[in-house]
Amino acid sequence: MNHATACPEPDITLCEEMLRVLKQQSFDGIGITRDAYGEGEQQAHQLTEALALKLGLEVKKDAALNMYLILPGEDRQQKPVMIGSHLDSVPNGGNYDGAIGVLAGLAILSGWRAAGVQPPVDVIVLAIRAEESAWFPVSYVGSKAALGRLTERDLAVTRRDSGLSLAQHMRQCGGDPAAVAQGHALYPPERIQAFFEIHIEQGPQLEEQQIPVGVVSGICGSLRYRFAHTQGRYAHSGATPRQWRQDAVVATAMLISLLQRKWRQMERQGHQLTFTCGRFFTDPLAADMSKVSGTVDFCLDFRSENRASLQAIDSYLAHCIARLTTRYGVTITPGEQSRSEAATMSTELKARLQQAADALAIPVLTLPSGAGHDSAMFAVSGVPTAMLFVRNQNGSHNPEEAMNLPDLAKAVQVLNLALWNMLMG
Amino acid sequence: MNHATACPEPDITLCEEMLRVLKQQSFDGIGITRDAYGEGEQQAHQLTEALALKLGLEVKKDAALNMYLILPGEDRQQKPVMIGSHLDSVPNGGNYDGAIGVLAGLAILSGWRAAGVQPPVDVIVLAIRAEESAWFPVSYVGSKAALGRLTERDLAVTRRDSGLSLAQHMRQCGGDPAAVAQGHALYPPERIQAFFEIHIEQGPQLEEQQIPVGVVSGICGSLRYRFAHTQGRYAHSGATPRQWRQDAVVATAMLISLLQRKWRQMERQGHQLTFTCGRFFTDPLAADMSKVSGTVDFCLDFRSENRASLQAIDSYLAHCIARLTTRYGVTITPGEQSRSEAATMSTELKARLQQAADALAIPVLTLPSGAGHDSAMFAVSGVPTAMLFVRNQNGSHNPEEAMNLPDLAKAVQVLNLALWNMLMG
Repeated sequence: MNHATACPEPDITLCEEMLRVLKQQSFDGIGITRDAYGEGEQQAHQLTEALALKLGLEVKKDAALNMYLILPGEDRQQKPVMIGSHLDSVPNGGNYDGAIGVLAGLAILSGWRAAGVQPPVDVIVLAIRAEESAWFPVSYVGSKAALGRLTERDLAVTRRDSGLSLAQHMRQCGGDPAAVAQGHALYPPERIQAFFEIHIEQGPQLEEQQIPVGVVSGICGSLRYRFAHTQGRYAHSGATPRQWRQDAVVATAMLISLLQRKWRQMERQGHQLTFTCGRFFTDPLAADMSKVSGTVDFCLDFRSENRASLQAIDSYLAHCIARLTTRYGVTITPGEQSRSEAATMSTELKARLQQAADALAIPVLTLPSGAGHDSAMFAVSGVPTAMLFVRNQNGSHNPEEAMNLPDLAKAVQVLNLALWNMLMG
Repeated sequence: MNHATACPEPDITLCEEMLRVLKQQSFDGIGITRDAYGEGEQQAHQLTEALALKLGLEVKKDAALNMYLILPGEDRQQKPVMIGSHLDSVPNGGNYDGAIGVLAGLAILSGWRAAGVQPPVDVIVLAIRAEESAWFPVSYVGSKAALGRLTERDLAVTRRDSGLSLAQHMRQCGGDPAAVAQGHALYPPERIQAFFEIHIEQGPQLEEQQIPVGVVSGICGSLRYRFAHTQGRYAHSGATPRQWRQDAVVATAMLISLLQRKWRQMERQGHQLTFTCGRFFTDPLAADMSKVSGTVDFCLDFRSENRASLQAIDSYLAHCIARLTTRYGVTITPGEQSRSEAATMSTELKARLQQAADALAIPVLTLPSGAGHDSAMFAVSGVPTAMLFVRNQNGSHNPEEAMNLPDLAKAVQVLNLALWNMLMG
């Protein structure tokens, strides 16, 4: 048992130093590229492993090459506490999305090691693989594998750029996809005491409200129609009166307008929800300025912490489709629906983070996460989970993504104290 | 002077026969292709010339290779009457758009020749070049040239498929672009007594109202924004609350919805108008299901017989843009405006067509032409002009374009009698 009585400071200099090296090695000329199960992610894992070894941590890897950087506890049979995030990035992305969660964990363990602290149970920093679905069309590849949930079918998908399968990429990096497919987990969910993640917000709320750190209330579930289609009929723009048109652009534009209005109404009624139509396009070959458009392809993305809100907007969508079909003589086919369940954050762990922030006099905002995160996979697997957001600028998944180190330092301090109070208090 | 006392029948069999041969020689495997100043149009002109010579007509060509098929009148110094349309088609188009106007004229002259009629002035069937702007990005190439209005700049544009200039194509077919550019007209507008055109409707009004023939009230002018653009800001779909979005799709969809609503209102107030957004697309590379869209490109096409109606909708557009800019934090740039003036049809000639239809007990509908036609060029040049529409099915500019020969026969009978009454009555 450790004899330090005060909580050690986390090693923020380590974050700064590592972010500099990561940026240097993964800058692609435009932004940051750390390709999942490719050279970029490999280099980031090698750098992180070297640092962990230098810090005297134990290093384990699972069959999917997620990396477990362990500060051994007194009782190694007890359930460990984990701090984790991912090291991959989107193509031409930013340096902070993912990486700061791993570095935050190492900064804490480095501080504890320097102070000679031995926690009662293992504290594990988890460097997760392949979180960004920009590479493989499967979400949370690494955390799914860590929890024994990645399937044979998932492993068969191909990487968008290379055309090679996830299994092939994993094998090339030294992993064992056959073992992954068997669903074995180094740490099954029921054997994990808690999972914490620090991540940039990716949205503007902390920045707009000038608050450095956010406590995530929950991770939104999503309801998506990736391949929605409106089928109307091409017709001469000048020669076709209004009442004889089957105008795919007008019908789809009306649908988007109605959904936007409904979103505003639902927010006023207290629903937490987002609605986005990110793609909307007429046929590049068939459409023309002097034709009523016969088709529109589009997609719909709804997110909410609450299943009931998603259900409500989905019912409204069906109502609109019926109404617009009659009104404009078009067929609107939303296509296959995909859903991800909302992930509930642990009330106890959220309270611990809030208390630590209060004790440190660091202002925090409670806000939902509209984006998905590895934490969602741990939470839906039954692991008590909580997340902190760090204020950041210019969104994410782009080279302009920005963050100020003092804001990261504040989030790390909050997590550091919350962990200390949880394990050592 | 001719001594026939009754109006001869037009030679409808000629139309049927010629449509069959035209279809055979210009079927491209999908639809009809008679490319302007290319092989397809050349073949159609050769076929038509051969027929005209067989009918004993005089044949002249101008420097742009428009063809004048002349039944000489008694006084060749007097202003001739013209019947004309174009022989080119869009790629994968239909057989009737354009061609029937030339064949209708020949059917009339064939009937008159067979009856030994010599009119008091020349009656000229004009086979016009390159009406479809699918080939060269200039409208009414042939009629402009016929009227001495085709410019050096027009002649420099390139054909969309070949990359060769209009001048080069014209020269390859045996024309003289340098002479065309000098603006010489075989028949200047002030030397033409009247111009008539028969054309398929291209819209559904005659078909829906079960009327075989239409008298065109006027040819709509247009007001177009070919390259309108909405600039918003890309943002994470889940992480960006409504109030911080600059959503290009939502703003543009609202604009289209507002314009559509305004169109309906204006029609109720008695305006004659069409509004079409034929193209609407997010960036194929940057847009994504999980991003608020940062850009939309789109186009707007408004048409009306009345300049005031176009002015009214254009003012409303400016109002909407200002309103949506404020509301959604986007920039909507309509881009360069292009206009074509509405073409007024001759009241006298319209009345003559109506009287002939009444005398023949052929029901006709008076309706505007939303599409542009060679007639528009003659009308805006000051030539007294009138048009008849023939009921057709499935629109035009597509392989399904359809028409029933008896409907064409009725239109030809109407024009035949109107001409007879005008010249011989």
